[in-house]
Amino acid sequence: MAGKKVLIVYAHQEPKSFNGSLKRVAVEELSRQGCAVTVSDLYAMDFEPRATRKDIAGAVSNPEVFSYGVEAYEACKKRCLTSDILEEQKKVQEADLVIFQFPLYWFSVPAIMKGWMDRVLCQGFAFDFPGIYDAGFLKGKLALLSLTTGGTAEMYTRTGASGDFRYFLWPLQHGALHFCGFQVLAPQISFAPEYASEEERKAMVASWAQRLKTIWQEKPIQCTPPWYFGH
Amino acid sequence: MAGKKVLIVYAHQEPKSFNGSLKRVAVEELSRQGCAVTVSDLYAMDFEPRATRKDIAGAVSNPEVFSYGVEAYEACKKRCLTSDILEEQKKVQEADLVIFQFPLYWFSVPAIMKGWMDRVLCQGFAFDFPGIYDAGFLKGKLALLSLTTGGTAEMYTRTGASGDFRYFLWPLQHGALHFCGFQVLAPQISFAPEYASEEERKAMVASWAQRLKTIWQEKPIQCTPPWYFGH
Repeated sequence: MAGKKVLIVYAHQEPKSFNGSLKRVAVEELSRQGCAVTVSDLYAMDFEPRATRKDIAGAVSNPEVFSYGVEAYEACKKRCLTSDILEEQKKVQEADLVIFQFPLYWFSVPAIMKGWMDRVLCQGFAFDFPGIYDAGFLKGKLALLSLTTGGTAEMYTRTGASGDFRYFLWPLQHGALHFCGFQVLAPQISFAPEYASEEERKAMVASWAQRLKTIWQEKPIQCTPPWYFGH
Repeated sequence: MAGKKVLIVYAHQEPKSFNGSLKRVAVEELSRQGCAVTVSDLYAMDFEPRATRKDIAGAVSNPEVFSYGVEAYEACKKRCLTSDILEEQKKVQEADLVIFQFPLYWFSVPAIMKGWMDRVLCQGFAFDFPGIYDAGFLKGKLALLSLTTGGTAEMYTRTGASGDFRYFLWPLQHGALHFCGFQVLAPQISFAPEYASEEERKAMVASWAQRLKTIWQEKPIQCTPPWYFGH
């Protein structure tokens, strides 16, 4: 939709990968609609995943006992977080929709993307107490996980070896995104592209591009236990 | 128990932290029992969390299109993974029990520990197909998550804002640890130490030390959906 701003947080090492294709068609389709699209290409940026003292520019409030959460919160209020965090926060602040594009690593995001969440979505920026969940500071924004799996769709069912795919989405969609106030759109899961034929891979990419045509009309999921666990 | 080997994978920036205390009493109690205890202090090691081309020493099998999973698997078979990964794998290989000590970041492990999982537990070392879950290569070993939370125990209940704490354990305990064959001991969760009194904090540390006295007699959890979701 013309005028909308989209941030794609992208974590794949290889531009020619299937994840790279999904990212590329998203940029193309959203740009075609007149959206302003920004991509944070985490590996290309060599994004720092570790939450350390270095994230605080200048003095810390308690040099005797370092608490990352406390210091990041203080630094956020004083605008003295390190510049890579501030740049990402600016992108998030401006975005109407944040898309996370990644291959599933251990039922979760790759460490480089986990580091983006750990460092960018700090207290004072993304939430504060009591401003969490529906009152999180990023309320009014949409978020969407677009991920690829190694395992097949059958494995990620209630009776499959890896359980329903919704189970592993809980920490990411509820614990991180909803906690910060995001409204979560249904995930886009491309199952087992490695085991798919070239034709099937093309169909998965096309179906993502197709979905994005009407993405602004979608309703968010009801981000509560029944969606995930059926109770 | 004398002769047992324990690896503690530890992710906290500050030795004087509550996590630091939990790690320290674990080292003390297990050493007292005659266990050989090794600690991987991830922040002190400045452990690399990013899964990249640099993890492969020497030539990659497909320089045209880099696939981390494929290349790490090949490098593992040829023993040409980078040395920090090989060192961690050696520690895991020797351990009877691996304890993960960390503060919960976004319903999961901090990125630096996620990177340890992403990079160390690679195909060929921790699993291969069909060697997953009960047939994972680390079968016969025990794993235990010892974590601290920001939120209170009440928040992490079925009707609390953050849901049952078992929900967020699924990706870590089932998706990562059980997938590799580990038998999972019940988690040690120290809720909201930041909001606790000094006395309550001491009690939480003491209860962890106490539990470790009989840790070798514990039975693993039944790591299937009913444990996590009640169905």
